[in-house]
Amino acid sequence: MQSPRIMLPWEDMPRRWYNVKADVPDLATPVLHPGTLQPVKPDDLIPLFPMEVIGQEVSQERWIDIPSEVQEVLSLWRPTPLHRARALEKALGTPARIYYKNESQSPPGSHKPNTAVAQAYYNKHEGVKRIATETGAGQWGSALSFACAQFGIECMVYMVRVSFDQKPYRKSMMQTWGGNVTASPSELTEAGRKALAADPDCPGSLGLAISEAVEDALTREDTKYSLGSVLNHVILHQTVVGQETKKQLAMAGERPDVLIGCVGGGSNFGGLVTPFIPDKLERPELRIIAVEPESCPTITRGRYTFDYGDTAKMAPVVKMHTLGHTFMPPRIHAGGLRYHGMAPLISALVEKNLIEATARHQIACFDAAVQFARTEGILVAPETSHAVRVAIDEALRCKQTGEPKVIVFNLSGHGHVDMAAYDAYFSGKLVDYTYPEESIREAMRSLPPVAP
Amino acid sequence: MQSPRIMLPWEDMPRRWYNVKADVPDLATPVLHPGTLQPVKPDDLIPLFPMEVIGQEVSQERWIDIPSEVQEVLSLWRPTPLHRARALEKALGTPARIYYKNESQSPPGSHKPNTAVAQAYYNKHEGVKRIATETGAGQWGSALSFACAQFGIECMVYMVRVSFDQKPYRKSMMQTWGGNVTASPSELTEAGRKALAADPDCPGSLGLAISEAVEDALTREDTKYSLGSVLNHVILHQTVVGQETKKQLAMAGERPDVLIGCVGGGSNFGGLVTPFIPDKLERPELRIIAVEPESCPTITRGRYTFDYGDTAKMAPVVKMHTLGHTFMPPRIHAGGLRYHGMAPLISALVEKNLIEATARHQIACFDAAVQFARTEGILVAPETSHAVRVAIDEALRCKQTGEPKVIVFNLSGHGHVDMAAYDAYFSGKLVDYTYPEESIREAMRSLPPVAP
Repeated sequence: MQSPRIMLPWEDMPRRWYNVKADVPDLATPVLHPGTLQPVKPDDLIPLFPMEVIGQEVSQERWIDIPSEVQEVLSLWRPTPLHRARALEKALGTPARIYYKNESQSPPGSHKPNTAVAQAYYNKHEGVKRIATETGAGQWGSALSFACAQFGIECMVYMVRVSFDQKPYRKSMMQTWGGNVTASPSELTEAGRKALAADPDCPGSLGLAISEAVEDALTREDTKYSLGSVLNHVILHQTVVGQETKKQLAMAGERPDVLIGCVGGGSNFGGLVTPFIPDKLERPELRIIAVEPESCPTITRGRYTFDYGDTAKMAPVVKMHTLGHTFMPPRIHAGGLRYHGMAPLISALVEKNLIEATARHQIACFDAAVQFARTEGILVAPETSHAVRVAIDEALRCKQTGEPKVIVFNLSGHGHVDMAAYDAYFSGKLVDYTYPEESIREAMRSLPPVAP
Repeated sequence: MQSPRIMLPWEDMPRRWYNVKADVPDLATPVLHPGTLQPVKPDDLIPLFPMEVIGQEVSQERWIDIPSEVQEVLSLWRPTPLHRARALEKALGTPARIYYKNESQSPPGSHKPNTAVAQAYYNKHEGVKRIATETGAGQWGSALSFACAQFGIECMVYMVRVSFDQKPYRKSMMQTWGGNVTASPSELTEAGRKALAADPDCPGSLGLAISEAVEDALTREDTKYSLGSVLNHVILHQTVVGQETKKQLAMAGERPDVLIGCVGGGSNFGGLVTPFIPDKLERPELRIIAVEPESCPTITRGRYTFDYGDTAKMAPVVKMHTLGHTFMPPRIHAGGLRYHGMAPLISALVEKNLIEATARHQIACFDAAVQFARTEGILVAPETSHAVRVAIDEALRCKQTGEPKVIVFNLSGHGHVDMAAYDAYFSGKLVDYTYPEESIREAMRSLPPVAP
């Protein structure tokens, strides 16, 4: 008998973040001001972010030290285990060896606090009293509320209404950690009031919630803004995931053949895979797969071009795969994957053929999540179920070919507060949705007039 | 900097269960047949439990081997970490060193699968196809559903109605693991139908749900019964908790001064503390504290005598601290602590002055839970909040006396599906309840005619 968990000693927890821009040329693309459409200077970002974070956003350094205060909080749950999914392998009858990195055991239940803690720390360090943010499924808002409590900062969360209604327990979680939560669109901001005037039943979107949080930060002296995905510094902070995974695979004597993560904004995926990009450069047969929902197919059906980060055109314009910032995804249960764009860093890696993308329907993802729960035990978040689906698909392909591949995926979060989605699945209420080509073309008309 | 988590290597996971009856004389008290009130023989229990479990129930052996199939499933999450609560200590300004054993990271979210896995295994091993059980807060039903999925057995769960209504997500969890769940009282059993006839709005109780599950098992050939607490074999299976804790404290160079656990039926508490009873015998100043809710004060206000294990008088009569089997506790949020009785083993240890008991009101417990969440990060179950409350109380007492005591408590489960209770706390809807002396006296009239 062997332990199904590969535990990394605390002494081997990463002390530095890894910056993939140092190893792949031309990953940095210009960031444009949403008003002028001219390149922003670091100074333009000062009302939104602490200086250290702005520096990390544009840094080309390969390694950036993790402050000891951040390491101390991360140590509450890190290093996280890497599990060998023996029970799942047996149920599938596959020769593949499946591993998953378990990010669900952080207090907020996902990978999100890896960056929330860092961002809360830098804000605290620079004297900020209050942070405003948006949240989709609630994972990010929970993570930032938790992180702010650790450093004694106020936290204001704009939560996409469809998730706010579907996941009342997420709100209570954020409150328990001391966060203030409102449904977005809200009456608290100009952007919110405008959306409500146009449609009082507006389900909201991540893009719109970002607009509200950015407006909140720009209109208050004591407040800065924090983003839980998309930006370079967020992916940087998430690289503890991939660095640990590399060490744990080495401990198990394994070399990965396939790396898998779900993508909404790209942070859990980027955190797992960017530390493996140097391996990919040496060994092109290593496959790195981003999984997105069919109902929000940013990479697989979007365009690689400049677009606004948010609906109200207040966030910077960046080069990324996008469905258009006016794109309003349907109310699928994986709220964290309902974003019209993609991290510019991930988009650039796709364009360089270092990363591939695939899309899955939600019912097939819940099929996979239930099979996973009945074998490995863990109830995954609807977002994570997309990674589980593709891991199982790849393992089943190995069953056909007889190849004993090493498949690794990021178990980015648990689904304990997403059980209403499982309930909808069991009672046959889930619907698969493919966005009509025409609707995507329509949303593309909203792109800013910048050459791609 | 040091890690706040003391991780036990997998190789040091306990391979045997510890039986405290081998070290303290006269802990075993007679078990009586509910019909005849005469001592039951092991044979009488055959319709309810597998032979191995019956053997463990009456065993006097100090150590009992854990089957490798059980160890394999436990390894999905064991050994669990022991945390040093530095952030909480700092917030309290106490010289005490506070440790907590984190049983919340099992797939079902509590200590319960430690015995569920063992029980499911023994049933499978003896050819049983289906297991019936009851659940209060839902932790036990989740644990048994998870365990049954691991061994391919059907699981039928009678869930106390008040919790069924308060915690719909628990039901979805059990379904995801493949369990069948019904609210108790139900129309499926004679005991349930009788209770509904008397009161269609009956909130149910653990005692009544036990009656339903026992009746189910007794009336079906393919089905046996499983209990998540109270009995000797359940506490036996939980001793992996205390054994690991002992090793982890030794790794940290610590000797405990105070051990704390919440008590409903007594299983998480018994699992943590019975392996320390030999230490208590050598070192009487070691304090071992059971915490119960003021609204169901079994040890602190009940009587030590023979009583039925369930409301409908179908379960065996045992000697324990009891409020009377007709006692119907109010609808407090710690559903897992709403039981009229106490594990006979724990009761006997109380009578021998090896264990002390104390009671707390629920609002004070949620105060403690919120302070814990904002320092240590983890959202504890309402049951667990009772242990947190007393750990904080003891640490604050150390602050007054200046004593650097070592306080250890069992973090028996997370509260991710109990957020409605936190919500009630924040919105001021929680009420503290002290049971009137007269109501307890009234329930005592239902005791069976057996000399104590």
